[in-house]
Amino acid sequence: MSKKSKLKIIPLGGLEEIGKNITVFEYKDDIIILDCGVAFPDDEMFGIDLVIPDMTYLLKNREKIKALVLTHGHEDHIGAIPYLLKDVNVPIYGTRLTLGILDKKLSEHGLSKQAKLNVVKPGTKITLGSFKVEFIRTNHSSADSVAIALHTPCGTVLHTGDFKIDTTPIDGEMLDLARFGELGKKGVLALMSDSTNVERPGYSMSERKVGETFDELFTNNYDKRIIVATFASNIHRVQQIVDCAVKTKRKVAISGRSMESVVQASSELGYLKAPKGLLIDIADVNKYPENKVVIVTTGSQGEPMAALSRMAFSDHKKVEIGKGDLVIISASPIPGNEKMIAKVIDELFKKGATVVYKALADVHVSGHACQEELKVILSMTKPKFFIPAHGEYRHLMQHAQLAHKIGIDEENTFIMKIGQVLELDANSAKISSSVPSGRVFVDGSGVGDVGNIVIRDRKHLSQDGLIVIVVGIDGATNQIVAGPDVISRGFVYVRESEDLMDQIKERSKQAIDICESKNKYDWSSIKGAIKSNLSQYIYDETKRSPMILPVILEV
Amino acid sequence: MSKKSKLKIIPLGGLEEIGKNITVFEYKDDIIILDCGVAFPDDEMFGIDLVIPDMTYLLKNREKIKALVLTHGHEDHIGAIPYLLKDVNVPIYGTRLTLGILDKKLSEHGLSKQAKLNVVKPGTKITLGSFKVEFIRTNHSSADSVAIALHTPCGTVLHTGDFKIDTTPIDGEMLDLARFGELGKKGVLALMSDSTNVERPGYSMSERKVGETFDELFTNNYDKRIIVATFASNIHRVQQIVDCAVKTKRKVAISGRSMESVVQASSELGYLKAPKGLLIDIADVNKYPENKVVIVTTGSQGEPMAALSRMAFSDHKKVEIGKGDLVIISASPIPGNEKMIAKVIDELFKKGATVVYKALADVHVSGHACQEELKVILSMTKPKFFIPAHGEYRHLMQHAQLAHKIGIDEENTFIMKIGQVLELDANSAKISSSVPSGRVFVDGSGVGDVGNIVIRDRKHLSQDGLIVIVVGIDGATNQIVAGPDVISRGFVYVRESEDLMDQIKERSKQAIDICESKNKYDWSSIKGAIKSNLSQYIYDETKRSPMILPVILEV
Repeated sequence: MSKKSKLKIIPLGGLEEIGKNITVFEYKDDIIILDCGVAFPDDEMFGIDLVIPDMTYLLKNREKIKALVLTHGHEDHIGAIPYLLKDVNVPIYGTRLTLGILDKKLSEHGLSKQAKLNVVKPGTKITLGSFKVEFIRTNHSSADSVAIALHTPCGTVLHTGDFKIDTTPIDGEMLDLARFGELGKKGVLALMSDSTNVERPGYSMSERKVGETFDELFTNNYDKRIIVATFASNIHRVQQIVDCAVKTKRKVAISGRSMESVVQASSELGYLKAPKGLLIDIADVNKYPENKVVIVTTGSQGEPMAALSRMAFSDHKKVEIGKGDLVIISASPIPGNEKMIAKVIDELFKKGATVVYKALADVHVSGHACQEELKVILSMTKPKFFIPAHGEYRHLMQHAQLAHKIGIDEENTFIMKIGQVLELDANSAKISSSVPSGRVFVDGSGVGDVGNIVIRDRKHLSQDGLIVIVVGIDGATNQIVAGPDVISRGFVYVRESEDLMDQIKERSKQAIDICESKNKYDWSSIKGAIKSNLSQYIYDETKRSPMILPVILEV
Repeated sequence: MSKKSKLKIIPLGGLEEIGKNITVFEYKDDIIILDCGVAFPDDEMFGIDLVIPDMTYLLKNREKIKALVLTHGHEDHIGAIPYLLKDVNVPIYGTRLTLGILDKKLSEHGLSKQAKLNVVKPGTKITLGSFKVEFIRTNHSSADSVAIALHTPCGTVLHTGDFKIDTTPIDGEMLDLARFGELGKKGVLALMSDSTNVERPGYSMSERKVGETFDELFTNNYDKRIIVATFASNIHRVQQIVDCAVKTKRKVAISGRSMESVVQASSELGYLKAPKGLLIDIADVNKYPENKVVIVTTGSQGEPMAALSRMAFSDHKKVEIGKGDLVIISASPIPGNEKMIAKVIDELFKKGATVVYKALADVHVSGHACQEELKVILSMTKPKFFIPAHGEYRHLMQHAQLAHKIGIDEENTFIMKIGQVLELDANSAKISSSVPSGRVFVDGSGVGDVGNIVIRDRKHLSQDGLIVIVVGIDGATNQIVAGPDVISRGFVYVRESEDLMDQIKERSKQAIDICESKNKYDWSSIKGAIKSNLSQYIYDETKRSPMILPVILEV
């Protein structure tokens, strides 16, 4: 009797961490990848631009990959696709807007032409190898978002993607709750569900709430120019700004590269509806009276290079902030960005602008489901197995506890680590093994050439700087023939610390002399002696530990 | 007719920024300093340990200084005192607990013996030069906090310090609202008031609310060991933990140096009341049944070296976290600390502990007044002039707007910058000049020896690392006699980038050769040529800009 095949679920990211969402589904010789996103570096990843998933497992099994299917067009779900496509040109399936956004990104990487993009409508199913993949409409801060139901020989796995339940969405299309219910009645083998907002009780507010606040602000500030900063990808938010502009007879100008790009893509595809002549070029913004203009801009996270920061710090070519401006920051700070945003807000206030942000009015709502919505999905789908997704460990844990209250057994709930393999069939599930996984750093044009040692050195350098000791030694006689010279960077004001620098020079010389008196002429001994002598001395004198870099030049 | 003297108010910190609160009051030949705190470095201040105020103005006017008066014992109000005392041994006045906490700090700096500390009771007045200084009880997250009324020949200036109005405080002593009212009736020339929470509508919650949550948690988790992390300085919080421990027959152990120090000081001074035998040594904690112990610990901000982090990462000598633990994080993240705390919470969850924090229950309340409380103070004191204090620019602006609603003229409200001098008398006030002010960095044992250039270098090094090019040149012939050798740190994995490193070496050599062919033998030309040649090449190859450090050794 041959062993029956099992379905494997392998998250390569997006669990126990924020961002770089990617999940692998494998059955026999077929692999489907769900999303392929980046994460943004945290403070400890010095100099790193992006973090992408370790794709070793995918490259090793490239023959099996049938498709990459996408839930929506946010960076943490599509940002790593160019890095995957460079190695494996896998066919990609997603909704129209998602692929529109992706296409712009692929163009920037010169990959647009070769990419195999397949537009799928929410509500449809496609067959990919032994999988039937169903796209189910959801609500989220990115338009045209979907959940994915994977119908497999072992049963149906439902992955919500990022979602909320919005009963009054901007495009009129509520999450397809009926389909979630149907699937529940037929039987869901496993549910993977968004844990981001599991700490928040109740229901998330409707995107429409933000529109109501905009209405009020536009009405009360009829005499002011209005500048709204928000996430480029939130087309429903932009639509509501456009609607308010139409109502109050204002023109709309777009500032910021990513905002321009998304507005263009979503207008072309019909997701953003603006009357002809409403949109004006940012270069023409000063040709209109102040109170006849709305500027929609990037920079809601306080990013130093984004348009809003440039406006705040008088570095924007077309927009100068003053007393006649109302600035609305229609976003929440992503954890870690609080201080940057605060700086921008302070600067806008200093310029005399009126500034409205989350702490002062309902100018932002989250795109992720809160506890009651999560319970609705759990109750309606009644999965046999539950895998909390999209969240740090504490979110996954709390989502598991929530599921337990709904009646899902603890032993049927899996808090997975990235790289773990969950093997399941209709009756059982267990974590059986693990595959290579982790973070790959993108720094400039390099992918994976910066690792922990390099990061550790950068951290060390960032704390106390460095001291380079250069000495020329005669290769034949082992005598010092030049130096030691001492150069420091990021350590102290050298001009005010001449005594210290002289001492460092003197002690380097002593360390070398002592080595020679002990007949230790090998360079690593000499370098070691310089290092240990200096690091102790410098710490005693300054309570600092700069990097010490002895360089011996053989003359 | 001689010009009548005016009162000068000079904030040297604590405005338009968080922390390092210090305000100078000057009348003729008398100076009173109000508070003298530190700020904590932000992400851009690489390697800096503390930020203290620029005290140039005080040192220049040292003869005038009559006293330093303190509102409470938080670091951002007392942390820079050791640095002031090293130069000027000014008499210090504060309440008993504030000076108790200060004394511990001064001991660490070896300054305890010489310091002139004078305990003052809330409600009393003392005469210091031409000032009469009155200490008025307030409520705050530090016990024994006071506001200061400075009675001067020009009128009364009232500084709230950090405060809230707690009608059910733990020590039974509500802010002396009656005295604020009396002063208002007599006439307050100028009010300086805490702007920290001006964005929050309504009233702040009473500290007692936290006690109610503790009660509930202690009752529901009768079978668990309980670990509570909070700010060491919040003795009222610690008192409530102690009270719950007494009620539930648990012993209390203290972990973390600052917590031990504050608990000791406040017990000695009678601010923390614990029955004999309640407090046990942390070393003995495992001698008791798990559910008979409460551990009060530092680390509520996720600080990597604090006790809670050490517990979470299995690095604590006495406390091992497991399924039997309830961990309560009784604090809010200070902006910038969100990610560190999240890491600790995740780690505690991973160890199996139950973790309760601000997002999940009312385990923390703020120590700062919200809008309605601020309005009460403004209405009762009816100041002629108003100077919003303690806040970033947006907070000061909003506090000014709040005051305007209460009826304080806009032209009588001053949003001051640090270093500005506000001159005022009974009838008028204006910003007349400014004095040296700013931030002084403390790094290790160095005070002020690290400035912007050093920080800029550290930042550069942290982003892309560095490349050192060492070449030995014969001083007589100007010929290369050794090298160039290339060493890099924090740039790339050298082993995987040998081609790149070879190219860098080769191009350094070329740059030198070109200089020589042009008869440019001066070292700065050679260094400049190496730098510009390499930086362009490296950027083209890697899209990175490491620091390039050419070193010429004369042989």
